[in-house]
Amino acid sequence: MILTGAQTWEFKSKPVIIGTASVVGPEEGEGPLGGDFDFVYDNLEIGEKTWEKAERKLLEHASSLALSHAGITREELQFYISGDLMNQIISATFSARKIGAPYIGVFGACSTSMESLAMAALIVDAGGAKYTMAATASHNCTVEKQFRYPTEYGSQKPPTAQYTITGSGAAVVSSSGSGPRITHATIGRIQDLGVKDPFNMGEAMAPAAADTLVAHFRDTGRKPEDYDLIVTGDLATVGHAIVKDVLKKDGVNMGATDFKDCGLMIYDREKQPYVMAGGSGCGCSAVVTYGHILKKMKKGELNRVLIAATGALLSPLSYQQGETIPCIAHAVALEREGFEG
Amino acid sequence: MILTGAQTWEFKSKPVIIGTASVVGPEEGEGPLGGDFDFVYDNLEIGEKTWEKAERKLLEHASSLALSHAGITREELQFYISGDLMNQIISATFSARKIGAPYIGVFGACSTSMESLAMAALIVDAGGAKYTMAATASHNCTVEKQFRYPTEYGSQKPPTAQYTITGSGAAVVSSSGSGPRITHATIGRIQDLGVKDPFNMGEAMAPAAADTLVAHFRDTGRKPEDYDLIVTGDLATVGHAIVKDVLKKDGVNMGATDFKDCGLMIYDREKQPYVMAGGSGCGCSAVVTYGHILKKMKKGELNRVLIAATGALLSPLSYQQGETIPCIAHAVALEREGFEG
Repeated sequence: MILTGAQTWEFKSKPVIIGTASVVGPEEGEGPLGGDFDFVYDNLEIGEKTWEKAERKLLEHASSLALSHAGITREELQFYISGDLMNQIISATFSARKIGAPYIGVFGACSTSMESLAMAALIVDAGGAKYTMAATASHNCTVEKQFRYPTEYGSQKPPTAQYTITGSGAAVVSSSGSGPRITHATIGRIQDLGVKDPFNMGEAMAPAAADTLVAHFRDTGRKPEDYDLIVTGDLATVGHAIVKDVLKKDGVNMGATDFKDCGLMIYDREKQPYVMAGGSGCGCSAVVTYGHILKKMKKGELNRVLIAATGALLSPLSYQQGETIPCIAHAVALEREGFEG
Repeated sequence: MILTGAQTWEFKSKPVIIGTASVVGPEEGEGPLGGDFDFVYDNLEIGEKTWEKAERKLLEHASSLALSHAGITREELQFYISGDLMNQIISATFSARKIGAPYIGVFGACSTSMESLAMAALIVDAGGAKYTMAATASHNCTVEKQFRYPTEYGSQKPPTAQYTITGSGAAVVSSSGSGPRITHATIGRIQDLGVKDPFNMGEAMAPAAADTLVAHFRDTGRKPEDYDLIVTGDLATVGHAIVKDVLKKDGVNMGATDFKDCGLMIYDREKQPYVMAGGSGCGCSAVVTYGHILKKMKKGELNRVLIAATGALLSPLSYQQGETIPCIAHAVALEREGFEG
C-alpha cells in the first residue's frame, strides 16, 4: 500500500530523476534564473510561423534534450506523460507524436508540471515502466491569444495579472540511476472560493495551494522545517501573500522553512515590470524545478524540497458563462540522492 | 513489475469495477442499447441554459450515480480521474469540484474513457487507493459548437462524418468487492498517417486502433479468440472497415472473435440516419462499456472483453493551421468475476 493518509502516495522505491531539460524564451533568460536554463531562445517566434508551433517546438526541444541528458533513446522511453494549456493539449500531443513513446495526456493547467511528474513516478514505482518522462510547456503569446485578447491588441492589464512564461521543462524518471529521488506526491482537491476574475488567478489559486500543503503535512506527518525549500507555482505576489496567511490560520508555520513561489523566482519584477504580479503558465514551475531547483539539489545545496504546483482550471468559455474559477494544486516531494533524513 | 511487453500493464490484483453508471440523451435512448442505460434524458438541454452546463450535468449525474451503485460515499472516494472534449476539460473539472475527491485531469479525446479507466486501475493495483473513479462525458451540441459550427447553422456534412453522442459513463474501481475485473491496460502511441479532414475521423483513428490491438496481442501473448468480444470506440463505418483490413494485413485474424465498434453499436443507422457514419465522443465508449458490455458480463454472457477506445487529438486551431490529425487508442481488458481462463 503506497497510499499514506488521505491523498498522498509514498513511493517506496524512490524513483530517480535521471535527466531533465529546461528551455526558455528571451524574457525568462533575462530573469534571475537565466543562467540555470539549458537553452535560451533569443526570440519569441522560436523560428516558427505561429505561436502554437513555437510552443510545440519548445516542448519537443525540452523533451528531446531530457532524453539526451538521461542518456536514453526514444525507443527506450516507455511512457510520455504530458499536457499544456492549449485547447485539446495539442502541444503535448504533437510532441508525443515526435517522441513516439506510448502517451498519457494530462491536464491540470499550471499544475500539469507536478501532475505529470506524480504520474511518471507512480508508474515507475508500481513497476509499470523503467523509464517515463513528464513534460510540459507554455508560451506567453499562445496563452494571451487563447485566454485573453489577440496579441496584437497590446491591451492593458490590472496589477494583479500574471505573465505567462515562455518555456518548457521535462524530466526522465527511472527505477534506477543517479539523480534526485521522488519520495511523495500529494494529489489536490478542487478549491473554489468564488473568484471570477481571470486577471487575479493568484487569489483564486491560493486556497488550493494551502489545501494541498496542509494535506501533505497531515498525510506524511512532516512539518515545513523537514524541507529546505518549499515552493508554490505560480501564485505570484497576490497569491503567495494569501497562502502564507491561510497557512498561518491553519496553524502551519511556514516561517520555519524557505518558502518561495516559482512565479516570483523566474522574473526580476523591478527590472521586468511588464510581468506585473509575476510569472505563471504550465512551463513556469517546470523550468524553475527542472532548471534551477534540481541543479541546487545535485550540488548538495538542498536536501529535501516540496513543489506545490497550482492550476487555475478555467476556460474562456467557463468564465464568459459567469462561472467561478476552480483551482487545484499537486505537490511532489524530492530528496537529494544519498540523503537520509 | 507489472509491465508486460512494451506498453501493457498487467494488473496482478485484478482491480474490480464495483459500480458503474451510464446516463444518456434522447437519441442514445432511442438506439438499440437504450434499455441498458441507467438514465435517459428526454431532452438535449438536460434542464440547463447552455450546452456546456448540460454536459457537465450529465457527468455529475453519472459520477454521483456510480458512487451510489458502488455503495460508497463521496468521502470514501479517493481519486477522481476524468476528462472530456471541452477546452481545458471544464466538464471534468466542475464535476470534480462537486465530487470533492482529489482529482487527476486527463485528456485523450474519445479515448479518455479507457485512459481514465487504465489510470484508475493502475492506482488501485499499485496500492495507491482503495476506491478510484474513472468518468467522462460528451454532448452532441457542445462538440458541434466547439469543433465545427454554431449549432444554429444546421450545416450539412459528408457521409463520413460521425455524430457525437450525448452521454456520460462512470466506473468505480476498487481493490476488493464484486464485479468485473480489470486485468490489463495497453497504452497507445500516437499514429498519424496524414489525414487532415475532421469530417473523416474514423479513417484518421483506424491506424491507432490497429496499432494498440497489435501491441496488446504481442505484449500479452493473447489472441483475438481469447476474447469473447473486442470493441473499438469510435471508428464507425469507415474506420471500422479500415481497421479490419489493417489487422488482416498485420496477420491478426479478427474473424475469430466478435469484433464490434461502440460508434456502430449505440445507434441504429437505418432508423437514425442523421448519425451518418456512426457515433463518437468521449461518452460513447464509456456508456457502451459501462451501460451495455459490463451488464452482459455480469449476466455471464461474456467472459473476457477488450475495449480499445480511440481518440482524434486535434483542435480546431491545429487543423485550421493545416496540421494533420494525431490519433491514439488505449485498450483495457476486462474479465468476468470468477472466470478463470
